[in-house]
Amino acid sequence: MKNIIVGQSGGPTSAINASLYGVIAEAFDHSEEIGHVYGMVNGIEGFLQDNIIDLTKYAKKYEISYMKNTPSSFLGSCRFKLPESLEEEVYGQIFEKLEKYDIGAFVYIGGNDSMDTVAKLSTYAAKIGSSIRFIGVPKTIDNDLVMTDHTPGYGSTIKYIATTLREIILDAGVYDMPVVTIVELMGRHAGWVTAGSVLARTDYDKNPMLVYLPEGDFDVDQFIEDVKKALTVQNSVVVCVSEGISDKEGVFICEYGDDVAVDGFGHKMLAGCGKVLERLVKDKIGCKCRSIEFNLSQRCSANLASLSDITEAEMAGRFGVKSALNGETGKMAALVRDENSDEYKLDMALVDVTEVCNQEKKFPEEWITDNGTNIAEEYLAYAMPLIQGECQVPYENGLPQYAVPAYKNPL
Amino acid sequence: MKNIIVGQSGGPTSAINASLYGVIAEAFDHSEEIGHVYGMVNGIEGFLQDNIIDLTKYAKKYEISYMKNTPSSFLGSCRFKLPESLEEEVYGQIFEKLEKYDIGAFVYIGGNDSMDTVAKLSTYAAKIGSSIRFIGVPKTIDNDLVMTDHTPGYGSTIKYIATTLREIILDAGVYDMPVVTIVELMGRHAGWVTAGSVLARTDYDKNPMLVYLPEGDFDVDQFIEDVKKALTVQNSVVVCVSEGISDKEGVFICEYGDDVAVDGFGHKMLAGCGKVLERLVKDKIGCKCRSIEFNLSQRCSANLASLSDITEAEMAGRFGVKSALNGETGKMAALVRDENSDEYKLDMALVDVTEVCNQEKKFPEEWITDNGTNIAEEYLAYAMPLIQGECQVPYENGLPQYAVPAYKNPL
Repeated sequence: MKNIIVGQSGGPTSAINASLYGVIAEAFDHSEEIGHVYGMVNGIEGFLQDNIIDLTKYAKKYEISYMKNTPSSFLGSCRFKLPESLEEEVYGQIFEKLEKYDIGAFVYIGGNDSMDTVAKLSTYAAKIGSSIRFIGVPKTIDNDLVMTDHTPGYGSTIKYIATTLREIILDAGVYDMPVVTIVELMGRHAGWVTAGSVLARTDYDKNPMLVYLPEGDFDVDQFIEDVKKALTVQNSVVVCVSEGISDKEGVFICEYGDDVAVDGFGHKMLAGCGKVLERLVKDKIGCKCRSIEFNLSQRCSANLASLSDITEAEMAGRFGVKSALNGETGKMAALVRDENSDEYKLDMALVDVTEVCNQEKKFPEEWITDNGTNIAEEYLAYAMPLIQGECQVPYENGLPQYAVPAYKNPL
Repeated sequence: MKNIIVGQSGGPTSAINASLYGVIAEAFDHSEEIGHVYGMVNGIEGFLQDNIIDLTKYAKKYEISYMKNTPSSFLGSCRFKLPESLEEEVYGQIFEKLEKYDIGAFVYIGGNDSMDTVAKLSTYAAKIGSSIRFIGVPKTIDNDLVMTDHTPGYGSTIKYIATTLREIILDAGVYDMPVVTIVELMGRHAGWVTAGSVLARTDYDKNPMLVYLPEGDFDVDQFIEDVKKALTVQNSVVVCVSEGISDKEGVFICEYGDDVAVDGFGHKMLAGCGKVLERLVKDKIGCKCRSIEFNLSQRCSANLASLSDITEAEMAGRFGVKSALNGETGKMAALVRDENSDEYKLDMALVDVTEVCNQEKKFPEEWITDNGTNIAEEYLAYAMPLIQGECQVPYENGLPQYAVPAYKNPL
């Protein structure tokens, strides 16, 4: 009766702990086949330092269902890329430790780099004839993993963005004068997150009137023309931009403010593109303008998480464990949408993890419309099922109660 | 059977529309004494341009209970200060219009400046012998109005801050390395909003470990020492600062970054104090550091509003109407806490609006502890009752449904 070990890696999401919960709960459901459930604290990097938590023991002390609505990475995280050469000694060290803890299955929840870890470890296992199984469970708010319809974590992020934007759009419109509000959203290379902003539109407000993704070439002069035109339609114009927008020479717009911007300590200021565009609007149009960065809340707003996202994240975690028990290795649990069904129907499938890692799914070019300022209707059909349902975070004395994370030494 | 008119003024809050709902619902409850219920669109400024909405008619078309959980100012807002001299012709214009619409009572929901409007109009009414009654209903996230235990709007803001901070604290702690997160909160002169950040603390995390209010003298060298010391206690340090922190010469910390910070267009960058401190930590301590500005969401997050705040806001609106019907004028509806009760008990009272306006209630000096880096326990006892209970915003198809605001011409 071998043990199972699970880890989380890369940036957190609102749904990554629901996948963790799925892994743990499914493993508990198979207690006849699985011994202990261990967690790597701070991913593979922590594991290399024997930083692990006995989740079987944790579950005796704490209610693990709290994990489902706890944002951030319960197990802590790392950004650690395994070397390309399987000859490096770190591989031997990892497998020594896996033997030491009598591990039969290794489940890693993460994005691109984490799938790279799963790919390398499963390849190494094959090379040395180890029977340990390696399975990846996808997560990333960026939605940029290939071979999966979408990634757990994405739905909650765009639900947060659309909900919060509806509030900000209402707030920004209260004064009877022209006002431009620039909202900077996450996404250095892919525009999926920013595209979600169009879900905020209502019958009574066209905002966000302008949406710019990193997939397009951003032109500051054209931007000013776009804003001027939008201001002729309504007084309050909300613009959503990806942090990674760049011009046709590939220069990031956030760097426009960087070249001569030096603060009182003699250092370059690291303003985002939102601040740069705010200044530009004030300068070229002269109206009231404010920029807002949604920042970390985009990936950790448990209260505005999507129930369907949380449910699918748990499903993916459970499917990962089932797959390992079925003898699979070197695979990622992928989300497959039934394209033949009118209703949204989702299934799980296994894909070869080597085909997933180090790839990037860009936002489809044909879904970027109106000269790079808008998103096609097709996107709405794609995205709406991902934001359905609301989560009930447990509250006590007026405040949310989250799971005490492993990296806080709860045992 | 005279009509009643209601307006909103100043910055929005998550609770200001609950007060509006209270005014409208209470007026409808007295339909034998009150004719039409009108709303000024964009406050007194809009009223001067006959920009009004017939709320009696609106209520026939839309469900007005949606207002209770709709953020922003449903009626739109203005920042319009009436002249000091009652001889100015604008007073005559306002009263002409009040007569034209056959107004018997004028209810104004707002902060300091709005109470100033109520004071001046009631004084003018007395001067010309008008029987129109003027009542103020308090709102402001800043909690800086005198003669009221707290202001509607404040509870929702600190509940949003504490909840969101709990999420960010979890997120910020996932990597096994020293990291400083600086959160910039609203409050130019009063630290009430920033003080609310201490509600985020849990048994397992002391964050925010450092809290700085504008009431203290901020010293950048001492700040670096404070952060260094905090980093010896735990790896992840979250610091909360009011936007309005200043040094002992009265220079705003956000201006430290301003003197030589010029962007690519040759303009001064308007970074907040959070960005300035982020740069300082990177420079003097050299660890990972991120700054986050909570921005507008502090005042418009309907989903994280406090139920007790929303309930009290409605109460204040209803009390305003009842007071007008009782013949009161020149008064503000104040919130009074029963100091003799062990449990939290709140009552409404009337206070003279002239004693409220143009005053500012600072955060008590004796509640600022640990050399200006912490908040006293007494504050928790004061604040906890204000964040109790959660609101259920109506959702449809995965997104919140808010009232269609008056400034969007819904009729």
